[in-house]
Amino acid sequence: MCSGKDEKYFKNISPRERAIFEGAITMGALFHQFIGTPVSESSVKSLEQAIKESMELQPCIDAVEVNIDFGNSGGGNEYEYVSLTGEMLDIKVVSSYQGVRAVTRMRYYEELNYPLMYVESVD
Amino acid sequence: MCSGKDEKYFKNISPRERAIFEGAITMGALFHQFIGTPVSESSVKSLEQAIKESMELQPCIDAVEVNIDFGNSGGGNEYEYVSLTGEMLDIKVVSSYQGVRAVTRMRYYEELNYPLMYVESVD
Amino acid sequence: MCSGKDEKYFKNISPRERAIFEGAITMGALFHQFIGTPVSESSVKSLEQAIKESMELQPCIDAVEVNIDFGNSGGGNEYEYVSLTGEMLDIKVVSSYQGVRAVTRMRYYEELNYPLMYVESVD
Amino acid sequence: MCSGKDEKYFKNISPRERAIFEGAITMGALFHQFIGTPVSESSVKSLEQAIKESMELQPCIDAVEVNIDFGNSGGGNEYEYVSLTGEMLDIKVVSSYQGVRAVTRMRYYEELNYPLMYVESVD
Repeated sequence: MCSGKDEKYFKNISPRERAIFEGAITMGALFHQFIGTPVSESSVKSLEQAIKESMELQPCIDAVEVNIDFGNSGGGNEYEYVSLTGEMLDIKVVSSYQGVRAVTRMRYYEELNYPLMYVESVD
Repeated sequence: MCSGKDEKYFKNISPRERAIFEGAITMGALFHQFIGTPVSESSVKSLEQAIKESMELQPCIDAVEVNIDFGNSGGGNEYEYVSLTGEMLDIKVVSSYQGVRAVTRMRYYEELNYPLMYVESVD
Repeated sequence: MCSGKDEKYFKNISPRERAIFEGAITMGALFHQFIGTPVSESSVKSLEQAIKESMELQPCIDAVEVNIDFGNSGGGNEYEYVSLTGEMLDIKVVSSYQGVRAVTRMRYYEELNYPLMYVESVD
Repeated sequence: MCSGKDEKYFKNISPRERAIFEGAITMGALFHQFIGTPVSESSVKSLEQAIKESMELQPCIDAVEVNIDFGNSGGGNEYEYVSLTGEMLDIKVVSSYQGVRAVTRMRYYEELNYPLMYVESVD
């Protein structure tokens, strides 16, 4: 949900820029809120759901898709779980403002050794 | 789950102390992992479930009960959610080691202005 | 520092939009990484410095200014510290890409009951 | 600092157990607060200092020693920093209650593939 009450603070950027701005905030927030959370095959669905529902609350966010992939986790520990890392995340955040829609993506690129956040598409 | 492989690192404390130790770790972990997460009435169930399932993965943890109470949240923002705070949490963590069971609790006490973590019971 | 190697992922947005995008990521990251950290008058300088130096590492970030204000902290607890909250933060993030500079700001607005993130200025 | 005001909540455990309990909370807190923070050789001192000073505020904590070792970091990314992981941490927390002192340690053990938290010594 976007609020009408904050519009005066955003007069110096376009609706397209606002949609990009809000998607980016939510992507940075998601990473730094949840990295380090213990996760296993048995708990992964509940963590994906909580990440999705909490991040969809942020301003101007329409939808969040969360996929946690254990293929990049480096293998489990002696206690059969791992700490969530950026390498394991594939995320889409859909944000919109005044009819402009941005899709922000995070996924790990081996050539960068980095979970890159970028704009996948924007109207 | 406790691992048999780490027992050599715990020879200087008793099973009762180990149960207390593991419950306390999980309580500190829980607080600092999830504080700040956006939450609303609509998303609270999924967040409680993810906290429970992720924290039950930690060593020697049998069960985690999570209750998020908006009564101490200070009211919602313009965007109809709040950031999770310690005041909103009522948590029980059940840990055990070699047959000794500890129940660790966190809840907000107004007289301390603090979400206190303490041992509610231990065998 | 911006990397040259990731440019191919950003062909669908302008340099101005990239500067806004990177500032917003860092602001969301900062909030959700550090909210909940114990802080007191005696420790505040080291926390401000660590937030600044860690967030300046993020892609395309030139400078981060951090001010933690206890005036909005709701008072200390029985243990003489508080958990860092969004209300206490006043942050500026300066990002740039190909000569375009964006200043992103977060500060608490009482009318929104919210630590608002917005673009303060952009070339 | 320990508070006198919370003593009534700790009547069912011994001073030795309280010292262990408080050390464990702080270790769990430290891990889950700071994992994911961007860090490089240039910023490591400020992050170590902030972790130390913030965690020394917690109840009954006398001292915290923090060493961040890049040897276990898996190498930097394209942007010349890494996200802090448990593998990189070597931590000592000294807690005490009514004259009993506990030293809690976290460090990575390859045989467990895990940053183990344990009690290194206790009076």
